[in-house]
Amino acid sequence: MIQIAVLGYGTVGSGVVEVIETNKQLINQKINGEINVKYILDLREFPGDPYADKVIHDYEQIINDQEISVVVEVMGGVNAAYDFTKRALMAGKSVATSNKALVAKHGAELLKIAKEKNVNYLFEASVGGGIPIIRPLNCCITADDIDEISGILNGTTNYILSKMFFEGSSYADVLKEAQQLGYAEADPTADVEGYDACRKIAILTSLISGHFADFEKIYTEGITKITAEDMKYIKKMGKTIKLLATSKKQNGKYYVYVCPVILPKEHPLFNVNDVFNAVFVHGNMLGDAMFYGSGAGKLPTASAVVADIVDAVKSADNNGYGWDSESLQISDIGGAKRSFFVRVKGDGAQAAQIFVNFEMIDAGVPGECGFITEEMTEKEFEDKANSIDGLINRIRMA
Amino acid sequence: MIQIAVLGYGTVGSGVVEVIETNKQLINQKINGEINVKYILDLREFPGDPYADKVIHDYEQIINDQEISVVVEVMGGVNAAYDFTKRALMAGKSVATSNKALVAKHGAELLKIAKEKNVNYLFEASVGGGIPIIRPLNCCITADDIDEISGILNGTTNYILSKMFFEGSSYADVLKEAQQLGYAEADPTADVEGYDACRKIAILTSLISGHFADFEKIYTEGITKITAEDMKYIKKMGKTIKLLATSKKQNGKYYVYVCPVILPKEHPLFNVNDVFNAVFVHGNMLGDAMFYGSGAGKLPTASAVVADIVDAVKSADNNGYGWDSESLQISDIGGAKRSFFVRVKGDGAQAAQIFVNFEMIDAGVPGECGFITEEMTEKEFEDKANSIDGLINRIRMA
Repeated sequence: MIQIAVLGYGTVGSGVVEVIETNKQLINQKINGEINVKYILDLREFPGDPYADKVIHDYEQIINDQEISVVVEVMGGVNAAYDFTKRALMAGKSVATSNKALVAKHGAELLKIAKEKNVNYLFEASVGGGIPIIRPLNCCITADDIDEISGILNGTTNYILSKMFFEGSSYADVLKEAQQLGYAEADPTADVEGYDACRKIAILTSLISGHFADFEKIYTEGITKITAEDMKYIKKMGKTIKLLATSKKQNGKYYVYVCPVILPKEHPLFNVNDVFNAVFVHGNMLGDAMFYGSGAGKLPTASAVVADIVDAVKSADNNGYGWDSESLQISDIGGAKRSFFVRVKGDGAQAAQIFVNFEMIDAGVPGECGFITEEMTEKEFEDKANSIDGLINRIRMA
Repeated sequence: MIQIAVLGYGTVGSGVVEVIETNKQLINQKINGEINVKYILDLREFPGDPYADKVIHDYEQIINDQEISVVVEVMGGVNAAYDFTKRALMAGKSVATSNKALVAKHGAELLKIAKEKNVNYLFEASVGGGIPIIRPLNCCITADDIDEISGILNGTTNYILSKMFFEGSSYADVLKEAQQLGYAEADPTADVEGYDACRKIAILTSLISGHFADFEKIYTEGITKITAEDMKYIKKMGKTIKLLATSKKQNGKYYVYVCPVILPKEHPLFNVNDVFNAVFVHGNMLGDAMFYGSGAGKLPTASAVVADIVDAVKSADNNGYGWDSESLQISDIGGAKRSFFVRVKGDGAQAAQIFVNFEMIDAGVPGECGFITEEMTEKEFEDKANSIDGLINRIRMA
């Protein structure tokens, strides 16, 4: 009997219990044993819940129970989760988590402890919800130099952008609707400002580089400035817009950023709409690959957590994957080259003098004009853009 | 030093050598050792090739060399490849292959020998070229009951259908063009009649069911009857058409078939065009997921083979994945339910009496009409279709 403890009986925690219960037979067959949820740690009581008798309030009971071999940390937050995870690993228990904030912040240290104790710290659910991406990067795409990972890693913002694009609605209206549907939180900051996607791309960058990619050093721009008018131009171009979290290796250094990007029809992420997530990976031998699925949601996320539990049970020893605490050198985004879409008030005569080579886009929006610049560095563009009078918006092009 | 032998120095074989050479450093780091290609078995000589001195013509040299721990079988065909693979496994050497024909036909037996000898028989490259799909099914999506796998598993036919769809060209013209570009072989039968995709879905079905899915029992229909006129109707519907290889679990049995299917815009495979492949997976907890990438080509395929070599080196023991020789019960396709798109000569008055509930599609093709039937079983549809005079074509709807 494999005894596990679940920390946090919220959405993901109750999902984990449900997945284990629903697919008991096939999961037990895979591990050649039997998984049993022995404890559920939560501050609350759950009277009437079929697992109410497993709910406890004292972590000491879990940490001191020699029978517990896997701890599932799905409580979220950083402080208590960090403390509990560290102690579980120190006690020789593997930990499976969906907690991207904790992995992004303390991953290197926790992975090191796991290694020392010859157990595993697993976090498939921390990026892309149910989409297998951590394990494919660790164990599947092993013959390639991965030089780019680009993902739609946040379902809330993808839902909002999709709705704005297809229905022409304003940001504020769609956000309100998303909140009513439960796709956006009452305080949507972490999603709409790109902080959530930033932590996820930090984790993926740490994984492919082997070093700690500090999320605080990642250029992050959300979707709050995208308007219904922008969408008119993007439609006119036959393109779409996505909040991309990107990590690109160039000359051994990484450009990492989160920002809205206009994508052409041919891009593998073009058709990823609504709350779906997808991760695009480029390997020097493999070429383009993409992983697509439900980036959030109770059961898809829990499915990834339970796959980690299966992994923890099957791989008795530390798997050796992860990153060290050495801080990864992240290139200044100012050196990254691309084209930009620009909207300015008036007829664009002044902008024409500044940019010289550009392509006008006529979306029929009165009193302004829009155009696509030639390729230049972010720094060059900012310098030029700063000298434009009446700049309305600028969006990066893929 | 990990000594390996490559059987067959064709496209994939030379790709394997190139991947190992190009990414030597990172691959060796991953296996914590050094991979060396000691022998290349081929009937031909390769004067001037940098690896010419490794080319040998006698398999006995490989089988008798205790140093060789991994054999890479990329020679294709079934007879000699089967013999060589079997002997390598019996001799305690792991085997990595891209040979779908062999895996589909003798997989169960070879996997059994690998298990007995505590080595591995690995075949990531046999399905979907560079796309990681075998390993994700084995090690990533482990908490789910996978009830559907549907894939665009053949690049040649996807290229032909994409061209016909986007450019309105005829099947014969696009096939000729594909042959000139090297996307289709001089004898394209295996691709265009669906036999290649059939072997791949047989492998995936064996994997998810645990039993031998006999490719000879899989309903297989190619793309040779799809015409430029069909495309006019499909465009009019706002849909697309793909050669799908599908495996669907229903009441513990599997419907497995390969045939052209009309897909709606919302389908994850809708936007997979040209030579790209993709595999759609549905899990009872995970929901929809999709894996996309280069389904063929020298380097992507070799990348998957080399990932198998890495796996074989890292996992000393047999991984326990695979299927047994018990023949999987495959349901008669006659019981599968769906709608059909039908084209008939004339105004469709007779068809209207036969089908009762249907939706007309006006694509402006003179002298005929097209419509979509209501949902019915394949058997019901065939019975009705047989009684139509002037049936031009019928295509399944997703």
